[in-house]
Amino acid sequence: MSLPPVANRNAFIAPFRVMELLWRARELEAQGRSVVHLEIGEPDFSTADAITRAGIEALEQGKTHYTPSLGLADLRDAIAASYGSHNPGRDAVVVTPGASGALALIFGALLNPGDEVMMADPGYPCHRHYVSLYEGVTASVPVGPDTDYQLTAELVAASWTERTRAVLVVSPSNPTGTMMSDEEMQRIMEVVRQKDGVLIVDEIYQGLVYDDTVGGSALRFADDVVVINSFSKYYGMTGWRIGWLVLPPAYRQAVDHLAQNMFVAPSTPGQYAAIRALDSDVVAELQRRRRVYAERRDYLLPALRDLGFRIPVTPQGAYFLYADCSDFTDDSRAFAYDILETVGVAITPGIDFGSHRQNEHVRISYANDIQQLKLAVSRLQDYLSSSR
Amino acid sequence: MSLPPVANRNAFIAPFRVMELLWRARELEAQGRSVVHLEIGEPDFSTADAITRAGIEALEQGKTHYTPSLGLADLRDAIAASYGSHNPGRDAVVVTPGASGALALIFGALLNPGDEVMMADPGYPCHRHYVSLYEGVTASVPVGPDTDYQLTAELVAASWTERTRAVLVVSPSNPTGTMMSDEEMQRIMEVVRQKDGVLIVDEIYQGLVYDDTVGGSALRFADDVVVINSFSKYYGMTGWRIGWLVLPPAYRQAVDHLAQNMFVAPSTPGQYAAIRALDSDVVAELQRRRRVYAERRDYLLPALRDLGFRIPVTPQGAYFLYADCSDFTDDSRAFAYDILETVGVAITPGIDFGSHRQNEHVRISYANDIQQLKLAVSRLQDYLSSSR
Repeated sequence: MSLPPVANRNAFIAPFRVMELLWRARELEAQGRSVVHLEIGEPDFSTADAITRAGIEALEQGKTHYTPSLGLADLRDAIAASYGSHNPGRDAVVVTPGASGALALIFGALLNPGDEVMMADPGYPCHRHYVSLYEGVTASVPVGPDTDYQLTAELVAASWTERTRAVLVVSPSNPTGTMMSDEEMQRIMEVVRQKDGVLIVDEIYQGLVYDDTVGGSALRFADDVVVINSFSKYYGMTGWRIGWLVLPPAYRQAVDHLAQNMFVAPSTPGQYAAIRALDSDVVAELQRRRRVYAERRDYLLPALRDLGFRIPVTPQGAYFLYADCSDFTDDSRAFAYDILETVGVAITPGIDFGSHRQNEHVRISYANDIQQLKLAVSRLQDYLSSSR
Repeated sequence: MSLPPVANRNAFIAPFRVMELLWRARELEAQGRSVVHLEIGEPDFSTADAITRAGIEALEQGKTHYTPSLGLADLRDAIAASYGSHNPGRDAVVVTPGASGALALIFGALLNPGDEVMMADPGYPCHRHYVSLYEGVTASVPVGPDTDYQLTAELVAASWTERTRAVLVVSPSNPTGTMMSDEEMQRIMEVVRQKDGVLIVDEIYQGLVYDDTVGGSALRFADDVVVINSFSKYYGMTGWRIGWLVLPPAYRQAVDHLAQNMFVAPSTPGQYAAIRALDSDVVAELQRRRRVYAERRDYLLPALRDLGFRIPVTPQGAYFLYADCSDFTDDSRAFAYDILETVGVAITPGIDFGSHRQNEHVRISYANDIQQLKLAVSRLQDYLSSSR
């Protein structure tokens, strides 16, 4: 008498390894040690007051029931309108439980067992894990500074197989913060179209771009792409769990049926708060926060370079620096733990983000205030000077 | 140049067909017609004030960030403690985005393609659709009034195949409201153990039981079962999207990794509100609501029987009556539409709940106030007397 074993797919679904390091950090803190947290994957700001207030008002009005499974019509309209002259219309927009929910829907709608999804390595681990969940196969394409850590049309064409169904682009990227140029995006669109595949663009960090001459949705160039986004990052609403999908007509019915069955509906207070997040007067506060992130990047990037970390491409968005630490170590995990234990700075070893040179990279987040960043730089300097 | 087609699994994932009927009802209402809604799957009450207030207070305190992916420790402890002398401990409890999230996790952890899950027909459609999502196979076992619309140990033993991995029991059941006896539950546990399978018990309607001598969790009898529950029904928190799983040790690591990757974390305001929902002083209001449901059942059940609907088993829980309408029709969908169009009462055709005699049944919900129930009965009487 024994319980059935876990399914085979679970072997491919790794935990976030940084959580282990975070546990160790918490232990040290419980012992009275100071730890600077630069492993962080979410904004340090709480949700802006105006947005939170809208969630509270909805609750005070008793709005605690299910919404339609694709989301409140007003929120879908507001999201669609946020694309300005490229408004895809309400029917194209599906509100989801975070960008995670968007991945659950689009890969569930698209992938048969064995189907391949192409994506860059390094990349956000949940992307490949969602592919595994549906018995799909992730075709990880190693990328480096020569392509801004992004796929290119040539790489996409060269890596295509007869099982490739989709190409996933993440711009700005987690963990690198680097972006794909408009020209490259359009060239990839052409290749994917020629191959009868579908391009999926994860734009979750789209609002957090620090160069006003770049950025903007892939919807500016095409309406046959799938776009993923979320209120978590730019809108600072992580805990509310609201994201969205923009879909071409071919996938709308399947996603509608999946959303009914997989989620019933996204969180109601989160949706009412999200409607407010798109109001133009809230943008002022969000843009102020964006400038704070930009200042942090502009401090941390040269400081880390001065310490000997190699960051060959200046990241244009998100709140991550992806640093080549091969001058210091060939074991990013051991390096991160040693830094934590020795000087109390928590950073994310590259091994969470794939298998291409991940032992020679760490991800350093600047979703923390500038005093903490300065303290971290000073501690890292102590660490590196004493260990060399 | 065309987009890839949707995956094969989508052919097995049906929409809730009642949504179509609900759309027609909304059209009629927009034209000024009155419709009584008895197709409802959620409590008509808004969330109790004390619970909502706790969610609001958390938001006012800026608790808008991610929680741990398995849920807040305080909430996991409170859920574990809610099982009294059968407290499974915090480590056994996983907080999920609704019971839907619980299904996503346990079936993802358990099912390889082709693995079978046994469940009763009629049953809640999302259960079998989640099995399809992971390329599993639903073994639907036709059940009727002779077994209170529940599986039995004999049916489980007789329907077992070498691909069977799990048996799903839902008590009280949606759509029937009927329960499995403690004795039968224990007999099924024995069979499942002998076969090296796992028993999954969906207890989402467990709080809504109207006979004080029955009810209670399967955890009273075993700790090698998986239990699913939610704050949606008894606690009246549908829109907050918080459910939970209780897991034996064999599945905890796989579910932990899946939860990190699939959800990041459940909704933060929902979790803070849910902690309050388990406080003993909130129970008074929830029990008052339970008595209101009981009164509605005690009115509606004999009234529908008097009209000629056959409801051979008195349902002991949930807020549904599953009525045999074979004296009136052999097409439950046409019957439901005709009732809607003719007298303005919305009920759910049996076809949403499986394939066993579903054209001869309808589900009638009493999650609506008693004045509306009386109006519906009077309209149904008009309908049935004029159509006979």
